[in-house]
Formats: sequence, C-alpha cells, structure tokens
Amino acid sequence: MSLARVQERIDKNKEAFVRDLETVVRIPSISSSSAHKKDVLACAEFLVQRAKKAGFERAEVCPTAGHPIVVAEWLKAKNAPTVLIYGHYDVQPVDPLDLWTSPPFEPSIRDGRLYARGAVDDKGQVWAHLLACEAWLQETGLPVNVKLLVEGEEEIGSEHLEAFLRKEAKRLAADFVVVSDTAMLDRGRPSICYGLRGLAYFQIDLRGTSTDLHSGSFGGGVKNPLHALCEIVSKLKDPKTGKIQVPGFYDDVRPLGKEERDRIRALPHDEASWRKAIDLPATFGEPDFALLERLWARPTLDLNGIWGGFQGEGAKTVIPAEAHAKLSCRLVPDQTPESVGRKVEAFVRQVAPPEVKIDFKYLHGGLPWVADISHPSFGAAVRAMEKGFGEKVCFIREGGSIPFVRTIADETKKPCLLLGFGLPDENAHAPNEWLDLANYQRGIKSCAYLYDELSRS
Amino acid sequence: MSLARVQERIDKNKEAFVRDLETVVRIPSISSSSAHKKDVLACAEFLVQRAKKAGFERAEVCPTAGHPIVVAEWLKAKNAPTVLIYGHYDVQPVDPLDLWTSPPFEPSIRDGRLYARGAVDDKGQVWAHLLACEAWLQETGLPVNVKLLVEGEEEIGSEHLEAFLRKEAKRLAADFVVVSDTAMLDRGRPSICYGLRGLAYFQIDLRGTSTDLHSGSFGGGVKNPLHALCEIVSKLKDPKTGKIQVPGFYDDVRPLGKEERDRIRALPHDEASWRKAIDLPATFGEPDFALLERLWARPTLDLNGIWGGFQGEGAKTVIPAEAHAKLSCRLVPDQTPESVGRKVEAFVRQVAPPEVKIDFKYLHGGLPWVADISHPSFGAAVRAMEKGFGEKVCFIREGGSIPFVRTIADETKKPCLLLGFGLPDENAHAPNEWLDLANYQRGIKSCAYLYDELSRS
Repeated sequence: MSLARVQERIDKNKEAFVRDLETVVRIPSISSSSAHKKDVLACAEFLVQRAKKAGFERAEVCPTAGHPIVVAEWLKAKNAPTVLIYGHYDVQPVDPLDLWTSPPFEPSIRDGRLYARGAVDDKGQVWAHLLACEAWLQETGLPVNVKLLVEGEEEIGSEHLEAFLRKEAKRLAADFVVVSDTAMLDRGRPSICYGLRGLAYFQIDLRGTSTDLHSGSFGGGVKNPLHALCEIVSKLKDPKTGKIQVPGFYDDVRPLGKEERDRIRALPHDEASWRKAIDLPATFGEPDFALLERLWARPTLDLNGIWGGFQGEGAKTVIPAEAHAKLSCRLVPDQTPESVGRKVEAFVRQVAPPEVKIDFKYLHGGLPWVADISHPSFGAAVRAMEKGFGEKVCFIREGGSIPFVRTIADETKKPCLLLGFGLPDENAHAPNEWLDLANYQRGIKSCAYLYDELSRS
Repeated sequence: MSLARVQERIDKNKEAFVRDLETVVRIPSISSSSAHKKDVLACAEFLVQRAKKAGFERAEVCPTAGHPIVVAEWLKAKNAPTVLIYGHYDVQPVDPLDLWTSPPFEPSIRDGRLYARGAVDDKGQVWAHLLACEAWLQETGLPVNVKLLVEGEEEIGSEHLEAFLRKEAKRLAADFVVVSDTAMLDRGRPSICYGLRGLAYFQIDLRGTSTDLHSGSFGGGVKNPLHALCEIVSKLKDPKTGKIQVPGFYDDVRPLGKEERDRIRALPHDEASWRKAIDLPATFGEPDFALLERLWARPTLDLNGIWGGFQGEGAKTVIPAEAHAKLSCRLVPDQTPESVGRKVEAFVRQVAPPEVKIDFKYLHGGLPWVADISHPSFGAAVRAMEKGFGEKVCFIREGGSIPFVRTIADETKKPCLLLGFGLPDENAHAPNEWLDLANYQRGIKSCAYLYDELSRS
C-alpha cells in the first residue's frame, strides 16, 4: 500500500525532480582543480542541506585530508536491514570548453536530455536515490535504514576514502551496499553491473635541453624530446592489435571463463549504434576478444593527454625543451596498480632514448572488482529495476573504475549492488555530458522499489 | 677623415644606443598572432618615425596583404653604389611565458646583456644599421646610397615579401644587398654567412571519434588518436641516427664538396661550450656528418609542437577525439618546400593507422640559399667586420631561414652579404632572448665601416 503511494508521488513530481537536479549541477565541483576547491566544498554543503530537507535525521560534511565526504543517515526502520548508498558529488574537468554547445555548469534541456557536467556522472544518480528516499520519508518513512555516503574525490582516485571507511567502519556498517555510478547496456536495457576495471594513472615528463631552442640554429644537433616521447609511446602497444607490449603486463590477468564469455556474447548489444554514436568506422583492439570483453574484462593502456612545444596559431620554429604525457591503464582482476605501475615505468625507462631525462610519476590508482551474481540480493535488485524500467535486466560489467566498490567489498564482505541509470553515450568525462530524463525518472522509481525489495531480503 | 669622425661619434654614443634600442623592443610586434596585429603596425610606424629622425630622406609604411613593410631611403651619394639593407621588425611568440626571468617586452639589462623578445632577432641588428646610418648622416652624409627594407612577416614565412619585391623592383634596385639577421660562430668570432637553410612548415590534425571518450567506457574498443600520432611521428626518423625515413627526402640534397667540408671542420667551434649552454650531454644526428655540417648543410625534420587530450593538473581519464602536431623541415640546396611537403604528406598518409582521419596542412616555407664567397664584395665585408670587431672573420653557414635572401638573390642576381652580430646562445625564438651589448656596439661600428668599404667596391 505505502509502496504504491510512494510510486504515485514519484510519478506526480516528475517535472519538479528535473528542477531539483538543476540546482546541484550548477555547482562546478571539479575535484582535480585546486582553483575549484571552494566549489567542491560548497557542493558538499549544499548536499547536506538538501538531505536534511529530504528528511534525513542527520547529515554532515565530514572533512578529509582532501575534499570532504558527505554522510546522511535515517535509521528508524526497526528490525529492518541497513543499506549503505554510495555516490560522488565531484565532477570531471570541462576542457576543451569550446566543444560544449551550452556552458557546462548552466544546465540546458534539449530533446528530453539535461546537458551539464555531472548530469549523469554522478549527480543525477545520487539525486535519484535522494529523491526516492524523500518520497518514502514523505509517506511512511523508509522500509530500510539508509546511510548515504557521497564523496568528493571519485574523479581523482578516491584517495582519502579508504581511510575514512576504516575510521568510520561502525557508523557506516550495513547489510547491503548500493552504488549508482554506472551505465546501462543500452536504451531500454536496465542493467546490474557485477564487475569494474581498476585504474593506474601516470605522467611522463621528458627533458632534452635546459631551454627551448631555435629549430634553425639547433636542428640536426639535438634529440628532440617530442620525438623521444613519440618513440616511447609507439613502443607501448602493438599498432595493429593494440596488445600492450610492456613485459609481464598480462601476467596477473584472470582468464575469462566459458560461461561468462557465452553470457557476454549473448547480450543484446548493438555494436553498430555504439560505433555510430561516436562516429567510429571500426572498433580497434585485441582480435582474440569480442568488443564487450575488451571493454569490460581486458586491461588497457591509453594516453589521456600529450603536450609540448608550440600549440598556438601559425608557426613557431622551436625545438622544445620538454615533452609530457598523461597515460593510464584500466586493470582487471587480479592486476594491481602498484605492480602495473612498476612494469610500465621499467619499460618506459628501458625504451627511452638516452638523450632525454625522464620523470615518471604515479598519479593515482584503484583495484578492479568482480562480484558473485548468485547472491540473493542480486535477485532483489533485478526485481526492483524490472519494475522501475518495465524491461528485462541485463548483467553487465563496466570498463570504468569506482575505487569505493572494491574497497567497501574488501572491508565489509557485504554484497555490492551496482544499479546504473546512465547511457553509454552520455559523454561522461567529455564535452556535452547529458542525462536522459526518462531514465532519470525510471531510476528514481527503481530506487524506491529497491528499498522495498531489500527490506524483505 | 669623415670615417674617423663617424667612428668617434659612435664610440661616444654607446650608452645612448642602448636606450634607443629599448624603445623598439618594448613593442610586442608578434607577427604570428592576430591579437597583436595592431602592435605590429605600431612597430612599423615607430620605425618610420625613427628613420626620419635619423636623417633618411623618405620613410614610409608600405601596406601588404599581411603586415606592412617599412622602406626608408637616402640617395644623395652621387656616383656611389647603392646598398639595400634588409631586416625585420616582427618577433617570435613569447610562450611559455613563465620561463622568462623578466617580461619579454620590458627590456632588462643584466651582465652586459639586454633581455627582451626581438633583442637579437632582429630589432637589435636593424638598429645597428639605423644608428650607423644616423652617425654618417650627422657627419658628412653616407658614402653610399642606402635603401632600408624592414619587413613584418619574417617569423611567419615572409609571405607577402616576394610580391612586394617584384612590384617595387625599380625602387629597391641596388648594387649590394646587406642582411643582418644571423649569428656569429662564437664569442669573438665575427662571421659572414654564405648559406641559409630553407623551411617547410606543416601541421597534422588527426581525428578519431566525434567527441572525447571516457577511457573506462571505451578503452579497449577504439584506436586512440594520440597513439596514432605517436606511431606516425616515430616512423618519420630513425630513432638512433636521426636519419629521415621519408622516401626521397634526400634526393635533391646537393652533396658538400671536400673543400667546404675541410673549411667547416677547421672552424674554431667549441662544441663543448655549445652543448654546455643548452645543458646537452651529447649531440644527436646523422653519424656521417660533423656537427656544423648537420646544423648548416643537412636537412632536418623536427616536431615543433604536439598536443591533444588532457594537459591540466591531476588526472582526467579521457580518450581524446583529436591529436595535433606542428612539424617543420629545414631544407638545403636544392630542396624545395613544395617537393618536400609532397613527400612528407604522402609518407604521413601512408604510415597513418586506418582508424584516424588526417588533415595535413602546409603552413609556410622558403627556399634554401648558398652564395659564392669568391665575389669581391665579400672582401669588403670581411675588412669592415675585422675593423669593427678587431678579430678575424669566419665564413659560416646558418641553420635558420631568411626567405628574403633567396628571393632577392634570385630576383636581382646581386651579391648578398650576411653580417650577423648575434651569438648562437642568445635564445632567439626561446624564452629569455638577449643581445650582447658589446657586440651590439661592435655591430654598429662594423656597419659604419661597411658603407665606406662598399663605396669603394
């Protein structure tokens, strides 16, 4: 009875929910930029106020050595299980800014999509839970105890989260962990994610000479650090197959079982429209693996940025003193960022031309994660999503990283349920990030069903 | 008699000459930047006023389709030859700005050096002629007729100069051409340059997908354009020898004769201090050629800039949609920018991975030049410089490009004398450009001697 009233309330408030989300995506909470430190804090404080307004008993900004973590609690469901809900309020940087159709922090609705940095990753998904909780709290109260944990450093490796989870282990204790920071397989394919890749992120800085040189006066006499960098990068991967050439890179990769490979290959994934959305004539990668296997269950090595010398309008005849690259690896069980970092650094130093000085920095990383989907809580999650979306649920893995999941899974040994409401082409981490507003509404409904299902698990 | 008085006047005005140069290096006449268009014009107008003040009969800003050219004339030397003096008032861009010890357009004198963008390249050398002319004009008038031609597009390929030279051929007709836009071999080695390399400058733009991608969601499925760019670049040159791998690249290179190789190898060039000035442990380049041969008489291919993806603080997990590089070749006789451009473009397209779209732009170029040093005017130049510097003159070539020289040599068939007062480590085109003020003064004296020597040639 109360579940029906909660769902009715959610149906009625559809438009208001969009306005509500617009308030938080206006805050430029870019965690990687020291210039936005105050905005990150402002976003945490705004979230606390909003959680209190929603009816949470207690909500606070918890300082860390980096950006703060927001914790909100409602614990009045007697003899009911406790759900820990995780999300993040920090967002990715916005450059290149000139590729945005509307400004990243001025939400714009076009064709049923809300365009804004953070719309899908992850503010929209945090809001789905917040609003579902509010709907329950406005009716009968929640059928489960809820602890909401929203961090501000997910996009920069969740550096201070693990220490916080350890310190606050009692306060955060729960029977289930729910995370909404992933994408669905496709439109109309609500999905539960049972695997995440890890990450190891590096920076290479090369130096040739003490200063930039005139390419006329010095060209022919010095090793150009831009060429040195390209030589190093070109040796990292096989140009034809994409196979990573770093010795030992694949040593710790757990092979995919036949059952899982069959399940992945049977998924209704439309590769053609996946390619079309990003204007890609043909996919690229290890020929022995299907596309979804490569995206979900194989490790990668990708340059994320490269720079050095003159980038302006026109021509400047310089041999630059320095060359730089950011690169990162997506990891799968049982790789670790430390081991991969050691191997990549050793290889870079081995293949680097002797004429340049190398600085190799390890920026951050996180472990990969995979869950056992036979646990009964997965059944509860499937039922909630099928009711919320009116479609059959797919079991998927995800190529991205959510360091929290592996950490909380290791710390608590409790099941982690990853219910994602995003679409794979919503430009998370890129210009013109957007959120499908129909999925946003279905997500809110699914969350409300989930709390009910978990109360009976 | 009058020559002696002119030299006395120059000696007396040493300090005032430095103040005078400071006025023009304050003007940020960066020709490659459309934001500085007005500053380039302001510099041309300032130069006209200064030339009139020096006593030139006529001086004017001559518009072109790009930046204007300044022409000043003094033609009262009856039965005397006419000298066309060439220089440029435009300067290179100043980035990276944070590497400048003092702001590039606020001249700063430290240890007998004037630090400013354009100090040596080429405002200081233009000023040497202007002040030497003024000294003669304040005494007896010049012993030769002088036409001063100072352009505003040298740093961007002198695109409109050739048409101007053709159109104004009569007005600019001369018996000798004098250019001061080169460097000396070393401290205390006044030099006359008889060869210049040409230039061909390109930009490569690669595109992978329509938008930047999340490296977690898409990593393993797409060819990363940054890797594609590094693969292309790594194939352009042999990583061990620096030999350019573009088919046919060396086809038109005129071999060096034994006499010239012997002369070059006998020059008093201090390689160790050349390396030390730029903090270079070891030179790099074709093993079959000596360093000066490689710098002066062998073609090059160098990346001048590379960029793509995330360059900010911290970590952004993106697979960028685009990758870019600026690259240029220094050319030697008998290469042409067009032929080299065709070969480089064809090779880039041939080795590029099929997954990326390529845009190859030809930005600008200029032909190489080499002179016959047995012409008697070279003797006049040697005598003038040996008197001005009190040191023996070296015959050198130069690795840089001055498109004007080849153009005027082809158009007029008159001898071109390249008297450079710069030092090889004065950071032309780099941060902290400077001019040795003792050489500036010796340069002014040499110019004054030169006009006298040429009046008797």
